[in-house]
Amino acid sequence: MKPSETDAPGDMPAKEFRAAAHEAADLIADYLEGVGAYPVLPKIVPGDVRRKLPSPPPEHGEAIGTILGDYKTLIEPNVTHWNHPGFMAYFAITGSGPGVLGEALAAGLNVNAMLWRTGPAPTELEETVCDWLRQMLALPPAFKGHINDTASISTMLALAAARHRLPGLEIRERGMAGRSDLPPLIVYCSDQAHSSVEKAAIALGFGMCNVRKIPCDDAFRMRLDALAQAVTEDCAAGRMPVAVVATAGTTSTTSVDPLRGAGELCKREKIWLHVDAAYAGSACVCPEFRALLDGLELADSIVVNPHKWLFTPVDCSVLFAREPQTLRDAFSLVPEYLRTADNGATNLMDYGVQLGRRFRSLKLWMVIRYFGVEGLRARIRAHVRLAQAFKGWVEREPEFELCAPAPFSTVCFRYVPTHLQSDPEAQDRFNERLLAEVNAQGPVFLSHTKLRGRIVLRLTVGNLRTQEEHLKTAWRLIREAVERNG
Amino acid sequence: MKPSETDAPGDMPAKEFRAAAHEAADLIADYLEGVGAYPVLPKIVPGDVRRKLPSPPPEHGEAIGTILGDYKTLIEPNVTHWNHPGFMAYFAITGSGPGVLGEALAAGLNVNAMLWRTGPAPTELEETVCDWLRQMLALPPAFKGHINDTASISTMLALAAARHRLPGLEIRERGMAGRSDLPPLIVYCSDQAHSSVEKAAIALGFGMCNVRKIPCDDAFRMRLDALAQAVTEDCAAGRMPVAVVATAGTTSTTSVDPLRGAGELCKREKIWLHVDAAYAGSACVCPEFRALLDGLELADSIVVNPHKWLFTPVDCSVLFAREPQTLRDAFSLVPEYLRTADNGATNLMDYGVQLGRRFRSLKLWMVIRYFGVEGLRARIRAHVRLAQAFKGWVEREPEFELCAPAPFSTVCFRYVPTHLQSDPEAQDRFNERLLAEVNAQGPVFLSHTKLRGRIVLRLTVGNLRTQEEHLKTAWRLIREAVERNG
Repeated sequence: MKPSETDAPGDMPAKEFRAAAHEAADLIADYLEGVGAYPVLPKIVPGDVRRKLPSPPPEHGEAIGTILGDYKTLIEPNVTHWNHPGFMAYFAITGSGPGVLGEALAAGLNVNAMLWRTGPAPTELEETVCDWLRQMLALPPAFKGHINDTASISTMLALAAARHRLPGLEIRERGMAGRSDLPPLIVYCSDQAHSSVEKAAIALGFGMCNVRKIPCDDAFRMRLDALAQAVTEDCAAGRMPVAVVATAGTTSTTSVDPLRGAGELCKREKIWLHVDAAYAGSACVCPEFRALLDGLELADSIVVNPHKWLFTPVDCSVLFAREPQTLRDAFSLVPEYLRTADNGATNLMDYGVQLGRRFRSLKLWMVIRYFGVEGLRARIRAHVRLAQAFKGWVEREPEFELCAPAPFSTVCFRYVPTHLQSDPEAQDRFNERLLAEVNAQGPVFLSHTKLRGRIVLRLTVGNLRTQEEHLKTAWRLIREAVERNG
Repeated sequence: MKPSETDAPGDMPAKEFRAAAHEAADLIADYLEGVGAYPVLPKIVPGDVRRKLPSPPPEHGEAIGTILGDYKTLIEPNVTHWNHPGFMAYFAITGSGPGVLGEALAAGLNVNAMLWRTGPAPTELEETVCDWLRQMLALPPAFKGHINDTASISTMLALAAARHRLPGLEIRERGMAGRSDLPPLIVYCSDQAHSSVEKAAIALGFGMCNVRKIPCDDAFRMRLDALAQAVTEDCAAGRMPVAVVATAGTTSTTSVDPLRGAGELCKREKIWLHVDAAYAGSACVCPEFRALLDGLELADSIVVNPHKWLFTPVDCSVLFAREPQTLRDAFSLVPEYLRTADNGATNLMDYGVQLGRRFRSLKLWMVIRYFGVEGLRARIRAHVRLAQAFKGWVEREPEFELCAPAPFSTVCFRYVPTHLQSDPEAQDRFNERLLAEVNAQGPVFLSHTKLRGRIVLRLTVGNLRTQEEHLKTAWRLIREAVERNG
């Protein structure tokens, strides 16, 4: 059929798209099959990629084959390979096969599920899949989930809901500035909590100085006595507690704050309890790890990131709320152009800041179905087992030091050479050099943190391609670096 | 090779993934080729999809073929088809071929480009592609862009930066509550501005009552005299202006606020000017439409959504800032576990709330390269031409009323039957019925808004599949509905 003269220039022709989609399918399959052959960190310096990109945009369209070719030679080799079996830094993640397919399908649909009407299946699938996850985490049915992009946003929304629930303050309407009736509003978390708590406090206008970083016990868990004392002091000084953020799986050591105790304190003091389970929430699909999060069900809100350790491509962060109506009251705002018939359906735009929303539940649905809950459990357990084996190797070597309990799949350790026993600064420099040398090799990528003021190395297992051999390689590279620098 | 006994259960096997990826490629290609055969709005009611999904999660893994089959029969037909040529509601968008491929490739890489180190090519591609867009919009080189998920977040970040720039208030550190030295902080926008301004004011703690909705002129543009007066009154009363949000392409009518005048006022009064060009920013790739946004370059920050009218799959919202350092000062916060060597590289996590970030620049890069700037211009112009033709049809029919100027590709209109001339309520009911009947047919989807208190219908052209024939169908269905109800 010949396009009529009034036809507008359209999308890529159907036949060309189909061919290119098959080409992309092979590019992705090749990548996932061969990713282990890349160094985890590309050996480039800032500017190396930019220099190869034209400064002005292309005036004329280019062939898709050329673009895919540039992708393959310029982009793919120059990313940090998060899907690499040797990626053991930060929190290792996986864009698993079914998840990648889900993302691709969602991109084709290009649904914006802000309203039920603009995405009926996406809205109902999101509700269903979040409820699947709720069941997998053994949370009471009152908890309803919705999907955000990141835990940073989930936590910010939770703290905004906590603020909204403060009786009689009408902050949504009247704001926080220029009011003599408003005391400073305080958020509590441990000194091991993620920086997203402070970022939320900045955005919401609580201020960083009103984030109380409660000290931890020897195992890096928030001390409840210190929490209680801080709350008492703030109340006595006329300040108002808004929320406690307890962490289940802190970023540095994956420690778990005492959730039951925090929940009881919050209930007694009428403070919102938000649990940042972005990492360890996924492990709760296994009853033995759910037991480590005893009291999780006492939270008012919980964030769990399937894009962290549930094999779902970024981004996918589920925010559960025990009273989702509070989130809705805090944020719902329906302009005329978005008004639809009130048919009892959920309109997901009502639960947060963002109006536009991708069809993120599709990938999570495909991941849970493909692996099954049993399969997810087996993979989580395997990752923990691998990390525990590594922990054993560390413990058996006299000059290595395990720096924190490792309840899940993250191990914090450092090397303390005998001749540097009394020089902590030199120990730090030694371990930083160790890390740099190991990461420069290519096969593995580890990261670091600071514990009790000292540099420690972090190894985390969370990628589905990681096997025992990769841990052995990491361990070998670490010991070789030690020997070189000994 | 046989997996060793210590091997952990892994991802979907490579061969199975490759086959499934090709199957998905065909599913997407089939969808994009045949989407026009679906009714734009699926004929279902709330609960219809949910009812077909099992309440508990699957214990055992399922075959990928089964899952893709369910996708095809249960999910695909039950989404609202944003990629349908008859989608003319809200703002019509396109997940174009090259954009879909970009999303799929990004999902395979699964990069989290929070730091340069964790995504060197993604970081540098984002900087480059945002600079391409800057050049396409004829903005001065000082403007630097970064990609957020949505305009809601981009606007929230811009207003947080504006707040941070207020001299001497130290809100990041000290917060906004419980301070006697802080006046109410005021944000200005027109009464036609998007609800995201109010949502940002809620989140940031300004409060809805401190959002001044400035009245508009006859063409729905913010009245500068009223803006100046509001600023004067607020200052006189001891309140503090933080930012003006001018809109370039309002959601209801795509009117453009007087940017130059707003910019001059803001400069004089030292108020941050944020321009919400989420929709009309894309049109600025054509000089004749850029001219309608005269003064855009006076802004402190500008949001443009390539996922709206630049054929990029959701989500992709570019926030430009003239002094990106202010954004960085407002939000940068580097915990030890994310510290990297200071090699001068950009770490994109520094510019906002979210730590995790998808590789969104890939799809935008592929879209700009595939179509070329020239090709993007041709498509924008074609959409405007189609909408203007529709506008002409409306104007030629005596009982139809054009309700607002239509500078771009969105037309607001209504039908005012002679016998209801003096009954505005009945006119509203008539037009609502008209809309419901047209949308119930299947071939097209229009939306509505309220202008001067009256219901009006909105038709917008923004999907690459939309041709003149689809506009003709819309017009025919509207007139048939009029006749049925006449």
